[in-house]
Amino acid sequence: MTDIARIEAAARRMQGQVRQTPLLNAPLLDRLAGRRIFVKAECLQLTGSFKARGGWSAVSALSPEARARGVIAYSSGNHAQGVAYAAARHGSPCVILMPSDAPQVKIDNTRSYGAEVVLYDRATADRDAIGAQLSSERGLTLIKPYDDPEVIAGQGTVGLELAAQATEAGVTEAQVLVCCGGGGLSSGIALALEARAPGLKVRTAEPEGFDDMARSLNSGKREKNPAAAGSICDAILTPSPGEITFPILSRLAGPGTVISDDQALRAVALAFTHLRIVLEPGGAAALAAALFTPDLPDTVIAVATGGNVDPRTFARALELYA
Amino acid sequence: MTDIARIEAAARRMQGQVRQTPLLNAPLLDRLAGRRIFVKAECLQLTGSFKARGGWSAVSALSPEARARGVIAYSSGNHAQGVAYAAARHGSPCVILMPSDAPQVKIDNTRSYGAEVVLYDRATADRDAIGAQLSSERGLTLIKPYDDPEVIAGQGTVGLELAAQATEAGVTEAQVLVCCGGGGLSSGIALALEARAPGLKVRTAEPEGFDDMARSLNSGKREKNPAAAGSICDAILTPSPGEITFPILSRLAGPGTVISDDQALRAVALAFTHLRIVLEPGGAAALAAALFTPDLPDTVIAVATGGNVDPRTFARALELYA
Repeated sequence: MTDIARIEAAARRMQGQVRQTPLLNAPLLDRLAGRRIFVKAECLQLTGSFKARGGWSAVSALSPEARARGVIAYSSGNHAQGVAYAAARHGSPCVILMPSDAPQVKIDNTRSYGAEVVLYDRATADRDAIGAQLSSERGLTLIKPYDDPEVIAGQGTVGLELAAQATEAGVTEAQVLVCCGGGGLSSGIALALEARAPGLKVRTAEPEGFDDMARSLNSGKREKNPAAAGSICDAILTPSPGEITFPILSRLAGPGTVISDDQALRAVALAFTHLRIVLEPGGAAALAAALFTPDLPDTVIAVATGGNVDPRTFARALELYA
Repeated sequence: MTDIARIEAAARRMQGQVRQTPLLNAPLLDRLAGRRIFVKAECLQLTGSFKARGGWSAVSALSPEARARGVIAYSSGNHAQGVAYAAARHGSPCVILMPSDAPQVKIDNTRSYGAEVVLYDRATADRDAIGAQLSSERGLTLIKPYDDPEVIAGQGTVGLELAAQATEAGVTEAQVLVCCGGGGLSSGIALALEARAPGLKVRTAEPEGFDDMARSLNSGKREKNPAAAGSICDAILTPSPGEITFPILSRLAGPGTVISDDQALRAVALAFTHLRIVLEPGGAAALAAALFTPDLPDTVIAVATGGNVDPRTFARALELYA
C-alpha cells in the first residue's frame, strides 16, 4: 500500500532528478475567475508531465537485478515518456508498446528518450499477449500507469511539494483540483495532503462523457465510461477508476468535477495569456474546473498535469479564445 | 551605483512578492542543440516578464512620502505592467504614459493592474513634456526602464537566483545569454554573477539591425541603431545602450550575439515543444542565440525574459516551426 512514508521515500529517490515545479498565480486570472487560483505547473516537469515522477519512483524502487533486466510499459502518451526517461537515466532497458497508429511525434519522442518502441496493430493484435511474451522472454518488469503503489507514491510527491508551497503562500484551506484519468496522481496527492496539509482537499476533474471517477465517487463503486475515446482531453481518458486508486479517493476526495472540451480549450488559452505555460487539453482540465465550476471556495489550487500538445490543437485554442 | 549589496537589498525587499523563477532544461532540446541549454524562465514571473523585479525594486526603494505621491513610467510594454503591478501592491498611485496607438490589450492589462493610463499622440505630442508636467503637478517619481540604479538592482536579482540554481545543477562555468534592450537586465545579472558565480559570463542577445549593444561592446562606445522599429522582437528594441548600463557591460560582458527574427520564432516554437513555456519573440532572443550561435561552449544558460505575446504571432511560430 502507498502511504506517506512511501511517498517520502519516493521523494528522496527523486532528489535532484525530477523537477520541483512552481506554484504559479496571476492577479488578472484571479480577477477573471472571481477567486484566487494557484496553479501547480507540472507541464514544466521533465518530459512535460507529472508522469516522470511515477516512472522515476517505480524504476528506482526496483532491485538492481530487475533494473538491469529492464522495464516495459503500455502507453502512447505521457506515461511512455515518463517511464522511458526514468529508465534511460537508470541505465535500464525499456520497451514501450504502442499502437501502430500512434502519432509519429510521440513514437519519435519516446525513442529519443532511449526506449525501444514496439508497435502493434490495434485491430488485430493482443497487446497484453505481446507484452507478456516480451516480459517473460527478457524478464522485464511491467510498469502500470496508475494501479501500482510505487507509481502512486511518485505522483504523490506533487502533494508534498504542494503542501509546502501552499503553506508558504499562506494557504491552509483550499480545494485542490486534479486532472484525473485512472486516479494515480489524484490518489497520491490526496495521501500526501492528508498527512501534510489536511486543510487541502482533493477533487478530481474529468471531461464530460468520461467522468467515471466522479460517478464512482458518487455511487461508491467503480463505474465504467460508455466510450473509450471522443474527448479532446486524450491524456485522461481511462475506462474506469483504478482498483488501488479508487478506495484511496473514495476515502479522501470530495465530489468529482466535470468539464467540457470547450472549457478545457478556454483554460488552455487563459493559461497561455496569464500564466505563460503550455498545457494540453487534458492537462488543463483542473484549471478549467477551477475557472468554471460554480460554488467553489475563494481559494483553489489546480494541478496542471501536462503540456505535450499538438501545435494545431494549441493554435485552435488560441484562435478561439485568446 | 548598483553593486552586489544593492542587488541583495533589492532581493530582500522582494522576498515573497516577486516570484523565484525556475531554471528549466530538456534532454531533447539539448540533443537538438548539440549542447546543454538551461533556461531561466522569467516569462513565468508575475506580469509575464522580469520587469516586475525592477519595478518592485524601484517602488520599494522610494521614501514613504514619494511612494504616497506616486510614480510614472513611459512604456507600452512589459515595463508598464511591471511598474503598474509593483505600484498597486505598494498602494502607490501610478501613471503610465502610452502612445495612443498601443495595442488595446496592453492598455487594458496595464489598467487592470491598477494604473492610470495617459495616452498621447505619437505624431504630434511631446511625451517627455507631458510626463514632466504630470510629474511636477502631482510629485510623481519617474521610473526609467533601465538607466536607474534601483531598477538595475532589481533585475540583478535574476543573477542571484541563477548563481544558486546553476551551482545546484552542478554548473560553475557557462555563458549566460541575456535578451538585451537598454541593458538593465544584462548589467544587473553581470554584477550579481561577478560577485556570486564568477565562472558564469554574460553575453547579450539582440535582433539583427538592432544590435547597438553588440556594436558598442565592440567599439567601446555607445553606438546607435539606424532604425527605431522593424523587428518582431519589439520588447528589446532600444535606440542605444544605457548610460549607466553600458560601462557595467563593457567591463563584464563577453562579445554580444545577434539573432534573426526567424531564429527568434524558431526559439519560440522550440520552447513551446520542449519546455512548455510561452515566450514572446524578444523574450526568446537569448534562447535563439543559445541554439543557433556557432562556437558556444558545451553549457549555456539562456534567460527567457518575457511571455507577453500576441496570440497570432505565437500561432505563426507554431505553424512555421513546431
